[in-house]
Amino acid sequence: MTRKIFLLLIPLTFSTFFIFTETNLNAQQLPSEKIQRYSELAGRIVHSALLDKKGYGWLKELCTIGPRLSGSENSSKAITWAKNKMKECGFDSVWLQPVMVPKWVRGKIEIAYISKSKKYLNKKLTIASYGGSIGTSKNGISGEVIEVNGLEEVKNLGDKAKGKIVFYNRSFDNGLLNTFEGYGRAVDQRVNGAIEAAKVGAVAVIVRSVQSSYDNVPHTGVMNYQEGIAQIPSAAISVIDADFLSKAIKSEPKLNITIKMDCKSYPDVQSYNVIGQLTGTEKSNEVIVAGGHFDSWDKGCGAHDDGAPCLQTMEALELLKRMNVKPKRTIRCVLFINEENGLRGGIEYGKYSSNTFEKHLAGIESDRGAFTPRGFSVTTDSLSLVKMQNWLPILNKANIDWVRKGGSGGDVGQIKNAKALLGYVPDDQRYMDLHHSDNDVYSAVHPREMELGSAAIAIMSYLLSEEGL
Amino acid sequence: MTRKIFLLLIPLTFSTFFIFTETNLNAQQLPSEKIQRYSELAGRIVHSALLDKKGYGWLKELCTIGPRLSGSENSSKAITWAKNKMKECGFDSVWLQPVMVPKWVRGKIEIAYISKSKKYLNKKLTIASYGGSIGTSKNGISGEVIEVNGLEEVKNLGDKAKGKIVFYNRSFDNGLLNTFEGYGRAVDQRVNGAIEAAKVGAVAVIVRSVQSSYDNVPHTGVMNYQEGIAQIPSAAISVIDADFLSKAIKSEPKLNITIKMDCKSYPDVQSYNVIGQLTGTEKSNEVIVAGGHFDSWDKGCGAHDDGAPCLQTMEALELLKRMNVKPKRTIRCVLFINEENGLRGGIEYGKYSSNTFEKHLAGIESDRGAFTPRGFSVTTDSLSLVKMQNWLPILNKANIDWVRKGGSGGDVGQIKNAKALLGYVPDDQRYMDLHHSDNDVYSAVHPREMELGSAAIAIMSYLLSEEGL
Repeated sequence: MTRKIFLLLIPLTFSTFFIFTETNLNAQQLPSEKIQRYSELAGRIVHSALLDKKGYGWLKELCTIGPRLSGSENSSKAITWAKNKMKECGFDSVWLQPVMVPKWVRGKIEIAYISKSKKYLNKKLTIASYGGSIGTSKNGISGEVIEVNGLEEVKNLGDKAKGKIVFYNRSFDNGLLNTFEGYGRAVDQRVNGAIEAAKVGAVAVIVRSVQSSYDNVPHTGVMNYQEGIAQIPSAAISVIDADFLSKAIKSEPKLNITIKMDCKSYPDVQSYNVIGQLTGTEKSNEVIVAGGHFDSWDKGCGAHDDGAPCLQTMEALELLKRMNVKPKRTIRCVLFINEENGLRGGIEYGKYSSNTFEKHLAGIESDRGAFTPRGFSVTTDSLSLVKMQNWLPILNKANIDWVRKGGSGGDVGQIKNAKALLGYVPDDQRYMDLHHSDNDVYSAVHPREMELGSAAIAIMSYLLSEEGL
Repeated sequence: MTRKIFLLLIPLTFSTFFIFTETNLNAQQLPSEKIQRYSELAGRIVHSALLDKKGYGWLKELCTIGPRLSGSENSSKAITWAKNKMKECGFDSVWLQPVMVPKWVRGKIEIAYISKSKKYLNKKLTIASYGGSIGTSKNGISGEVIEVNGLEEVKNLGDKAKGKIVFYNRSFDNGLLNTFEGYGRAVDQRVNGAIEAAKVGAVAVIVRSVQSSYDNVPHTGVMNYQEGIAQIPSAAISVIDADFLSKAIKSEPKLNITIKMDCKSYPDVQSYNVIGQLTGTEKSNEVIVAGGHFDSWDKGCGAHDDGAPCLQTMEALELLKRMNVKPKRTIRCVLFINEENGLRGGIEYGKYSSNTFEKHLAGIESDRGAFTPRGFSVTTDSLSLVKMQNWLPILNKANIDWVRKGGSGGDVGQIKNAKALLGYVPDDQRYMDLHHSDNDVYSAVHPREMELGSAAIAIMSYLLSEEGL
């Protein structure tokens, strides 16, 4: 997920407990016969998901293709793979929605080292270019390093940064319960660090990798340039090497580092959202969307971000087919392209949703990893929220403990006219250890945890389809 | 945890939602000023636990000692280590409670292989002797293999099992949401398999390893003999080799396997529960116990079962000291010895609790791994339950989503006169992959997940101390 989108996602309150009048509550309650029937179905969905592990099997195939950066060949292969898989599943319609996407390529050279020092000469520093960054010249960029704690400090550097490499070293705050909040409080350095550093004459920036783990595996992610401000190269430095460098420049302030990167942006290329649906039997023009973003960064294979979560939404539809239920309303899986560095797929689908005769009832986004389920975070009116909260005895079969007011996600957030936008919320404690990094691989996903998410999304989609809002 | 105890632990209902009259509810509610004050403290506890990771650091030290099977030298070392650590923490009192424990030693030889076969001669089978099992003679036990689906099938074998090795091969049901339930439904084969097989003349048993993962690492655990019934050797076979063997005997029913084990039981030895407390400032004779079992199986290092959960209860007290709060009632950490193969520590403390002048208000057990927190499962009266449920906005700071009626744990379950017995419930999806096996090691514990558990137990203990029941 990108940083911009993150801000939408911080649940509005984590500890809020909603109180409503009894009349409203009763109006939204399901009769016990229905609760029993839905619970029985939910139990079967969960059992089948956990035993068959179909989505987890798909994840292995998807990860074999490799990472799926927007505009890449792998991304095209993955799109074809998903379209074919949806057809194999026997969804009622499967199609591709054309989207033009940016293309950025990391290239082959991505190195940094200490190039002038008494003590540390030639010591390698592990870096990862940020998505969208320009490269360096062939000989690289060399300079003294100036360490800062954030954007505000850079703004006040005056001439001190001129010709230097700005080193943003504010840590991820591991003291916060919610790791998305820890991420949100550090990631501005990555997103806007190059702009602010260029304004004060810096020649490049390196940013302490934004992550909750302590290792030598830097996390990439999107960065911005600003019109009229010089573009300078920008990369993450691993947290272990960031700590090393911080100490090194304290003992040798005149130390130089050299950075060489040959990453590059290319003109936009044609890509697609992948869409498949179970068409509603009674109200086919009322649509529930479930989806994630099918692009990933080019590190690891985007297993948790956002491969497995995408496949959960695809498996949700397949699970309903497996159970032989035919939803009243249309349940549509949308695998959005280019969330990470452009949100073009979400925007394109958002335009479609505004112009179609269809009515979008709800959108469910799965873009927070594929760890064990916790809840659903929902943007909707109070009565619809209570209605969904009354479904908890059913959702509980898939380990869902709560439905709370909160953000949904960047892609479904583009569906402006939906009655409810939901974010599927798995546990987040391990997510920021690996997202956007070489550690985000197939083996980091646990089959039971992933499959429970598929089941949770299937159950929520089906309840929305049958009960409406 | 043992199988006997497990039955106590299945939460009575997972989907129950309690309804009480408004009067009762109000009577149990905290004034908002208190909620705010406690929440602020809870927030500080969580922040400090996550940042300092003191318990996680302790776990590394503890795992360096090695596994802690009752009566072993490692177990004694760990007891001394814990006593010293509690003193270092500055707890108000630290002492050892003597307990005689059984001693069983795995020995050095633990092999199985196919010893008569056209196709598979000498193929190795990976086994793990069950705790309490007798060994074999030096030459091992050889025989044909008879596969069964469970205890009932064995009872009906008549003469067919005579002189043979009974192979219990009923799978762990991975289709169930609650992995403790999957465990509970398979583990009777391990616990009573040797008794039933001996009754029909079998010479040994092997049992499909009781676990949720699919690998070649067999899980051990306790097994029983019955007075008057012949004692025969009993071991787990890895699930991969179980599948292999099942196929092999279908194609070659006369195939033989040989098992060699030199495990052995010894006379009881002296051991100890390790106890430390923060003495209450107002009602020092009212006690809240928090604890886990300090023994482990002799595979891996008992990191999740029950090393980290024990250290969570120890860190809970240390966190309160770190925050400089002085509890009104006594909060006592008890590290019970010998839960796995005897429950002697729990029983001994239970006797103490029945005979002391002290009043045991509550016991909290941490024995379900150290994964991300979910809730507390409580055996108490309805009003006390509602009272604790009203603490959720505070407990939520440590990722606790619910307080439900349900079982506590085998050790605190021995405290017969407590007003409430609680089980701390972390997520269970990964637990049965590794418990009682070589995979239950330090690296399987996530620092944030473990530390949130310490914080949750600290907060719950403190609320019980300050508010009573």
